[in-house]
Amino acid sequence: MFIILGSSGYVGSKIFQFLTKSEKEVIGISRSEIDYTSPKILEEFLRSKKPRFLINAAGYTGKPNVDACELAKADCLNGNSVLPGTIRNVCEELKISWGHVSSGCIYSGRRSDGSGWAESDSPNFSFRSPPCSFYSGSKALAEEVLEGAENCYIWRLRIPYNEERGPRNYLQKLLNYDSLLEAENSVSHLDEFCQKCVESLEKEVEPAIYNMTNPGSVTTRQVTEWIREEGVTDKQFKFFEDEEQFMSKAAKTPRSNCVLDTTKAEKAGIGMRPVEEAMRESMHKMVKVAAA
Amino acid sequence: MFIILGSSGYVGSKIFQFLTKSEKEVIGISRSEIDYTSPKILEEFLRSKKPRFLINAAGYTGKPNVDACELAKADCLNGNSVLPGTIRNVCEELKISWGHVSSGCIYSGRRSDGSGWAESDSPNFSFRSPPCSFYSGSKALAEEVLEGAENCYIWRLRIPYNEERGPRNYLQKLLNYDSLLEAENSVSHLDEFCQKCVESLEKEVEPAIYNMTNPGSVTTRQVTEWIREEGVTDKQFKFFEDEEQFMSKAAKTPRSNCVLDTTKAEKAGIGMRPVEEAMRESMHKMVKVAAA
Repeated sequence: MFIILGSSGYVGSKIFQFLTKSEKEVIGISRSEIDYTSPKILEEFLRSKKPRFLINAAGYTGKPNVDACELAKADCLNGNSVLPGTIRNVCEELKISWGHVSSGCIYSGRRSDGSGWAESDSPNFSFRSPPCSFYSGSKALAEEVLEGAENCYIWRLRIPYNEERGPRNYLQKLLNYDSLLEAENSVSHLDEFCQKCVESLEKEVEPAIYNMTNPGSVTTRQVTEWIREEGVTDKQFKFFEDEEQFMSKAAKTPRSNCVLDTTKAEKAGIGMRPVEEAMRESMHKMVKVAAA
Repeated sequence: MFIILGSSGYVGSKIFQFLTKSEKEVIGISRSEIDYTSPKILEEFLRSKKPRFLINAAGYTGKPNVDACELAKADCLNGNSVLPGTIRNVCEELKISWGHVSSGCIYSGRRSDGSGWAESDSPNFSFRSPPCSFYSGSKALAEEVLEGAENCYIWRLRIPYNEERGPRNYLQKLLNYDSLLEAENSVSHLDEFCQKCVESLEKEVEPAIYNMTNPGSVTTRQVTEWIREEGVTDKQFKFFEDEEQFMSKAAKTPRSNCVLDTTKAEKAGIGMRPVEEAMRESMHKMVKVAAA
């Protein structure tokens, strides 16, 4: 049986949905039901349920975006850095395999040799390697907190998207925003991410950090071109002149834009589809759903 | 009335003692009695007690020393970085003036112009300015969490000492350790620190960050010479050859050694005695107590 912490969130609810569809036994909990930030409450709950796997999809992302984390630093640290440590302690005590939804946003750019960041590279967009947003700092700290954890997967998600019309879907964001920032990023098809995370637990892939993005990268302009080509919109997308204009007009804290290397996940058998294929499929579905 | 969080700790118990001796009304609580890390529990408690002032002397320091924080990162973040944010939120809601016991260990060395670090200087021994210990990182994060807090004092303590024979007293540590690291530091006479913190609340000094150390600095060799001169011991102190030997033999994480500028506290009327005077007095009392 699976337990999902943070099952009412954007990622948690999708993992819950995926497991339910796959006819797995799954219990999703949100903090308002059971305060899993309390080590005692979490331990009692897990002792009573005896799950085979736990997935931590809880976290503090800030609403409407990461700028909000700058104004709620303690909540951000508590949800993103302390909670994973609490879960680690309890899961190690009870010998439960588990996975933590981390983020690729702890990197910026590419490696100096031009390749994407591998799991063995230290974060370069974190408190220890400023500048960073408080959100990115807290997610990088979580990976420090989890260093050496037993039977623990760290799945790095990056800019989730699919065909759904919700406000957290990257493709929908591009459609909603007035102006866009041109940048190169690795991105994660959300449904595929969920599927591969669950597979890594079930297939007993070696517990470790994995960059769980679609192989390759996209630029914002490229994605907007695909969106137009696929017929999602005929909107003329507008772009900020540069990052400086973006920072002065639309953002309070710097954003991570980065390319990740996905070789490790691929070798472990939990690789995802190439980014263009996955993105175009999502766009295609957006059109189909709109037409239906 | 005063409320002290963490009143069973080294610093908290001394503040409690000082207030009691001064015939102030004071309630000291420790986390095992009332879990003040829960915003709800803290708020209910403060609503029921209606304190005029609150002092946060709670924190995670690691036992026997800061190396232990490297193995309990989540607890360290929770106690040192998240809790101050929780207290801030509740105290702002209830309009309670309060003070946080911070640390000068978020700096290393001196400013490039040779002077001590002032409150306006950014920490240079923190996650954002590595290397640092996880403990120092968490204390620096707390100051970020408290940025802009209303009616909040941040008192930076550094290497507390007095005449007592406890294991946390710096002078006693020097007597106990086999080998010492030669380094220059600003240090805080613990009792005087407590007195001045309370004064800053009562005199309504402007709420801000204050370096609460004895003006000046000491080197380890200087202190050991004073100890011998004052007749505390005739022990021949041994020193590590250099920081490298210290790190390889006695420490797992780097230590902060730094000199702080105390002008701001002095101008605000909460300055402490010159370091040699305060230190020699403590040593003198150690001898007197031993002889009694």
